[in-house]
Parts: sequence; structure tokens; C-alpha cells
Amino acid sequence: MKRKDLLGLRDVPRAEIEHILDTAVRFRGVSERRIKKVPTLRGRTVVSLFFENSTRTKTSFDLAAKRLSADGVSISASSSAAKKGETLMDTARNIDAMAPDLVILRHSCAGSPHMLARSFDFSVINAGDGINEHPSQGLLDMLTMRDHLQSLEGKTVAIVGDVFHSRVARSNLYGLRTMGARVLVAGPGTMCRPELEVLGAEVRHRIDDVLAEADVVMMLRIQRERLARAMVSTAGEYADLYGLDLKKLARASERTLVMHPGPINRGVEMTPDVADHANSVILEQVRNGVAVRMALMYLLLGEIDEAAA
Amino acid sequence: MKRKDLLGLRDVPRAEIEHILDTAVRFRGVSERRIKKVPTLRGRTVVSLFFENSTRTKTSFDLAAKRLSADGVSISASSSAAKKGETLMDTARNIDAMAPDLVILRHSCAGSPHMLARSFDFSVINAGDGINEHPSQGLLDMLTMRDHLQSLEGKTVAIVGDVFHSRVARSNLYGLRTMGARVLVAGPGTMCRPELEVLGAEVRHRIDDVLAEADVVMMLRIQRERLARAMVSTAGEYADLYGLDLKKLARASERTLVMHPGPINRGVEMTPDVADHANSVILEQVRNGVAVRMALMYLLLGEIDEAAA
Amino acid sequence: MKRKDLLGLRDVPRAEIEHILDTAVRFRGVSERRIKKVPTLRGRTVVSLFFENSTRTKTSFDLAAKRLSADGVSISASSSAAKKGETLMDTARNIDAMAPDLVILRHSCAGSPHMLARSFDFSVINAGDGINEHPSQGLLDMLTMRDHLQSLEGKTVAIVGDVFHSRVARSNLYGLRTMGARVLVAGPGTMCRPELEVLGAEVRHRIDDVLAEADVVMMLRIQRERLARAMVSTAGEYADLYGLDLKKLARASERTLVMHPGPINRGVEMTPDVADHANSVILEQVRNGVAVRMALMYLLLGEIDEAAA
Repeated sequence: MKRKDLLGLRDVPRAEIEHILDTAVRFRGVSERRIKKVPTLRGRTVVSLFFENSTRTKTSFDLAAKRLSADGVSISASSSAAKKGETLMDTARNIDAMAPDLVILRHSCAGSPHMLARSFDFSVINAGDGINEHPSQGLLDMLTMRDHLQSLEGKTVAIVGDVFHSRVARSNLYGLRTMGARVLVAGPGTMCRPELEVLGAEVRHRIDDVLAEADVVMMLRIQRERLARAMVSTAGEYADLYGLDLKKLARASERTLVMHPGPINRGVEMTPDVADHANSVILEQVRNGVAVRMALMYLLLGEIDEAAA
Repeated sequence: MKRKDLLGLRDVPRAEIEHILDTAVRFRGVSERRIKKVPTLRGRTVVSLFFENSTRTKTSFDLAAKRLSADGVSISASSSAAKKGETLMDTARNIDAMAPDLVILRHSCAGSPHMLARSFDFSVINAGDGINEHPSQGLLDMLTMRDHLQSLEGKTVAIVGDVFHSRVARSNLYGLRTMGARVLVAGPGTMCRPELEVLGAEVRHRIDDVLAEADVVMMLRIQRERLARAMVSTAGEYADLYGLDLKKLARASERTLVMHPGPINRGVEMTPDVADHANSVILEQVRNGVAVRMALMYLLLGEIDEAAA
Repeated sequence: MKRKDLLGLRDVPRAEIEHILDTAVRFRGVSERRIKKVPTLRGRTVVSLFFENSTRTKTSFDLAAKRLSADGVSISASSSAAKKGETLMDTARNIDAMAPDLVILRHSCAGSPHMLARSFDFSVINAGDGINEHPSQGLLDMLTMRDHLQSLEGKTVAIVGDVFHSRVARSNLYGLRTMGARVLVAGPGTMCRPELEVLGAEVRHRIDDVLAEADVVMMLRIQRERLARAMVSTAGEYADLYGLDLKKLARASERTLVMHPGPINRGVEMTPDVADHANSVILEQVRNGVAVRMALMYLLLGEIDEAAA
């Protein structure tokens, strides 16, 4: 892979997505062994720079780095110099002076990883920038779909919930369209806006309007503080209108995959029996997350010198 | 050792406790070397999942893992998805999907590590579940006693303070009774309840009623917010009634060991001259903590494949 | 190097400072390699014990330890037993019982690292004790100056800002005087007190009175909550009186180096065009920080056994 950074899936061509997913499949085996470690990135420095809280994504990247034998250091917003008024660029200049190979950035400002990628020699993986993209999540979602559907070409993926404000949805949209899939979106009008058509989505609103055609239904996490924006007054009302229960799921094909980026609000986005349903691949998404992140680190940092060695 | 998990000392037979302590003695040597590291658990993943704060216990487990060359990741309550409303089972399912070998759990709910142990293939060490058990603490305490008393059979251990609400006391009670020791408990009536007799303790109340017979006196940490429950109004009054000073210690044998699980409230549970007394083995407890935890990790994860190799 | 600890630069002779800087130059190469790791401190335990927040210093020490293959554990004030009322000595006794080789201590009490160094066998590096010293910062500053000025002998360094309350300034003052440099200090009267003359500084107040003679001008970070103490009412007023802009910098030699320990308050201690000026060596300071800390860890812990081996 020629690229230095992974900032989003918007500009990643199909062959490259396939190459990343194929590489992830190879790395999946490492986590299945008793000794879950390869020396690929020994002595390389990976910095996690998270300005927003995240357990799941950060733990997944941390484990990926450790299983590749990289040295990791974490800088979190709560302890960082940002609280002392330092700009992101100054923080990044300081990190750069310590000779990192890769910076994993999560930041509330869309475009912040692009700014770092342009300014520094180290590689950057965008682990979520505002409502823009979260490409490693998009890739692990697509790997999970591909495991079950073989190819994404011509398949139909329904994304339900606060699609407009979701970086997970946006990365999936870019990636799935590139892979030849059709994307239907459903959710409250304020969260499923017509602008999404520009990105290639077919915008509907009622969940019943997307289920019957879906090979995959991806339920997005709803943030309780945003319910008012969805024009609903309680989590229960949201669940009734946009959540997935067994009755609604029965309107889909009996093979329709159920996905969720986590953490699930059980009883809101989906009922517990749907979360734990035979068609739910939510934990496969998590498993694939470690593999995809190992693949990305390897492809951005490691591949070159194996050729050189 | 056949077991997958260490959830408590309640059901661990005598021979197995002896085997763990003997193994800990062997690992004690690793921390005495210049290069304090063995490759035993290289490439194995140890996850610390602490829903309650702990410096001492967490640092001890962390060092144990590092000295065995394991890869460790930490998830703490303050950063975890629990704050986003995720259930413990969902958090654990996510961790499980990342292929850990061992999860160290501290949680305020008694029984939570048992639930994880039953549900997942990874090993679980209970690092404290509510007021139930804290078995690695019980083991390090027994190792410290055994170092000085040779055998625990027939010895008398006095536990003083909030015994009823102490998981440290409960693990010691189970383990010490299994090893043939006699356990006396003393403390305020609300903290030293008659139910403790069911666990094999002899319940007394005044500290003077247990000191004369004790080979070991273990002073428990009192939490200041629980003083009212002890029917005392100040830390000073607690110290007068249930704390250990040189004058009270003189009523015990001159060989009586003084223990405390830490951190000490100096001047409350014991006066500084008692904490630093020649009979105090408090820091040996800490030293043995690292060795016991190395032994547990080795026995739960490592022993099998040395046989296989 | 014979010493067990590095507590301050006050008592470190010239030859030893030179030796540390020369060693740092050698270690600088490690961070320039693709595989940024040497096995020097494999199996040694380094404990970071930070009672004050720090991203920059802690990350620098963490990376230094990892690049030397040491095992590191971090204990921070927010999670530490200090919050449960444990004394620093009891915390340190507990750490000591876990067999560390080196403790990196940051604490608000001047003299606290000295107390630990006297009481325990482990090595101690003072990473900042109140307003007393921060010797690794002084060393990395001197290395940066030496890179550009060849020798410090006879050179003039101006330190501007809250010199009296700055441990960075104090360590520089001791070290620079030992190396034969002249130190001018400037700043508000309450922050640039006559007592500094006892330490060998020439005390002035207006920044214009030090710039013309300076080979180096080191701008100290001002804490906004201390502006009142500086007898100024806003950050803008401080910038006018004591900050560095291009116009003031023009009064210095065209080779005068600009330094800052970070994080910079852009627009307060210096304007952005000064921070990013060709004469600014602020990021070289950060780069040298990792190298100096590797050198210190190596010299305190590692050198002996290479002789023995």
C-alpha cells in the first residue's frame, strides 16, 4: 500500500479496500493462536491521541499494536496539554519531535487528522473526526459483511438511526458504494437528511421501508441527549419508531445480518433478543476490529521494509 | 492446576492452596534478580477490568503480567463504556471478541466474576467483588504468615475491624480455615456480626479479647464514611476502641505478627510505631502480592503448555 | 556514573553534566532508526509516580523507557492511594516492596524526591518537585544550547518570566552556572526577585535589558492564575511587557536562540511568528528530552552491568 495515512474511505479505491480486508483475514489468525504476537512492528512507536473518550476503539487499537510488537504510548484529552490551552498543532509538533511512526487520532473536529497528515512525516489513522469519518470502523463492518455475503457487489445495506451525524455511517457509505453495494438509510427526518443522497444513499424514513430489501441492517447508537433532535420525547418512543425488535426483524429476509457499532443501548436501538439473535454479527464486528487495525498498521508501517529486507 | 478461574478461596482445597503458595515462592526469585522477567506468558493477553479504583492491587497485577512477558491492556470504570450504559455482560462479550487469555475483574457486585467465568472461555481472576472475596489478597496474606509460622495448622489469626463488610477478611477466613488455622474476629457489633460464625470464625468484639491468643493480628482498613455504622463518632474514638497501639500490642505474644492490607490510615487502625514495628510484616505482604499474582497467572494460563511442549 | 539518583543539577559537577550530554547524543540515534529500540534495560522496572499532571514530561520518560526495553508502570495522583489518605512515604514503601529499579517522581513538595532517594534502594529521578528543580529539563535545555553554541562556557542565557517560581529556571541556573555560562533573568519584580542573585543570576526586569546580550533567550510559561501576582491584569498586558515578539527579537543578535519548555501560550509568552521562527529551537528541546532521559536511565541503571558483563 502506497499511502502514508488512512484518513477516510472516501478516496480509497476498491482494490485497496479488498487488499486491506484480505490482509486483515491473514492477521485474524494471530489472535486465534496461543501466542498472539508477531514481531512485525518491533521497535516502532504508535501514539494514541484521543481527545474524546473511547474504550472499545482504543482497546482495539492498543491490542492490535501489542500483537504486532509495537511500542505504544497513550495521550488522552483529560491529561493532555490541551487543557493547558495548547493547540492541536503544537501538541502534534511535540509528538513529532519524539519520533513516532504512527499517530491514531480521535478528535471532535472534522478534518483534524487530515491537517496532521499533511503537516508531518508520521502516519495518521483517523479514529473518528467529528461527524466526518471513522474508516477503521467502516472497514471492520465491511469485512464482517463480506465474511457472510462473499461479495458486497449488488448487496443492500440498510443503516438506521442518526445517520447524518454518524461518522460510522459516513465511512460505511463511502466504502460500501465503492464496493458496489446499495445503501438505504432510515431514521428521523432531522437525522436522515436529503443531503445523504449526494453520498449515494437512498433516503427513506420508516424502518419498515428498508427492512424487506436489506441483506444487512446496521442499527446506529442513539445518544440520549439527542432524542429531542429526533423529535421524540423518550427512549421508548425512539425504540418504537426506529428500534429493531423481533417483530420488525421478521419482515426482513431470514438471512438478514444485524449489526451495531456498540456500545448497544439494549431496549433502545434493538431489543435484547435481537442483539443476541442468530443473525446478529455484532461480536464478529469487534473481533474483526482487531484484525483490521493490525492490517492497517502493517500496511502503513510495515510492508515496505519486508520488501526492502 | 486444573481450574480455569480463581473466583474465591471458598472452594479451593488445601493441596491447591499449598501448590499456589509454593509456586509463588519460586516466582519470588524473579523479582529479586537484576533482569526481572521470564518469557512464560509471552504473547498472552491479560485484560485488567477495574470498576473500582485501586492503585495497589492493579499495579501488583500489572507488574506480575509484565514480569511474565504478557501483553496487558487496562480498562477502567472512568473511561469504560459502562458510563455509556453498557451492561457488564456486553462489556465482557466485547472483550471476549478480542481474544483475551485472562481478565482480572474488580467490581462492586458480589458474584460478577463468577458470571463472567461461567459465560466465557477466558480465565478470570476475581480482584475483589463487593463484600464477597478477594482471593489473591487472601493468598498473599497466607504466604506471608507461612513464611514466619512455617505451617498455618493450629495457628490463631485475629482479624480486627469491619470484618463483615471486608472481602479481604472473607477470603482469609475461607483460606485459613481450609489450612487448619483458627480465626478470631473482633470489631464493632455491626461489623463483626454473629453470621461470621457460619464461616468458621469465633466472634468476639473487644480487641483485648483476641490479642493474647493471636499468632497473627490482621488490622482491616476502616473507611471513614463507615464510622457511623461502627457506632463511633470520630476516627479517634475508633482508634481508641479498635485500633492497635504499642500498649495493646504488648498484651500479645512478642512474636505476634502485625498485618494490614493497606493503605493504612496511620493513627486510626494502628499507630505509626505499630505500623513500623519489628513484628509488622505489612511490606512483606506487598512483596508477596506480586509473586502470588505471577503464580496465579502462570498456573491458570501457562502450566498446561509446558507439559504440552 | 556513580550516583544512584538525579535529584537536581545543583550538585552535579561539570564533567558529569558533559558525560550525560555526550551519552544523550549517542542515544539520540536510537530514535532516528526504523527500529527505535535497544535491549539495554530489558527486565528492569521503571515506575512513573506523578502527583501533578504532565503529558509532555511523562510521555518523554515513557518513550525513553520503552526504547530501552524497560518495563514501565504508571501511578498517577488521581488514581493513587494518596486520595485515600496514604502518606508519600507509605506509597513509596509499597512501591519499594514491588522491587522497582527506578522511580520517576513529580510532586508539589520541594525535597520529596530527596526523601525517597535517602530512604530506598531504588534510583530516583526528580521530574519536578515544587519550585525546586526539574533536572532532566535543565539537561535537555543545555544539550539543545550546546548543539548550537558548541560550548556553554562564557555564553549568555537570558531567562524571562516567572523565574522565581520556576523549577525549570532553577535547574537551568544551577547547570548553566556550573558550565561557565552567564545567566540574566528578567520579569516582574515579584517573579524575578533579588534572591536569584544568590544562585548566580544577574537580575534585571525589562526584557529589553537582557535581549541584546543574549546568546539564548528562554521564555518561561506563565500560568494565567498567576498574572495578578505579576502585577498585570491581563494576558495581553503580560505579553506587552514580558512577551517576545519579532520587534523585540530584532534587538537581539540574529543568531540568538529562542527556547520555551512548553506548552506555549501562543500570543502570551511569545507571538506565533517567534515560536515558529528560524531561531526557535523549541522542538529540538522536545527531541533532546527523549535522548536525555534515555541517557539518564542508562547511566543510573544500566552502565554498571555492562562493565560486569
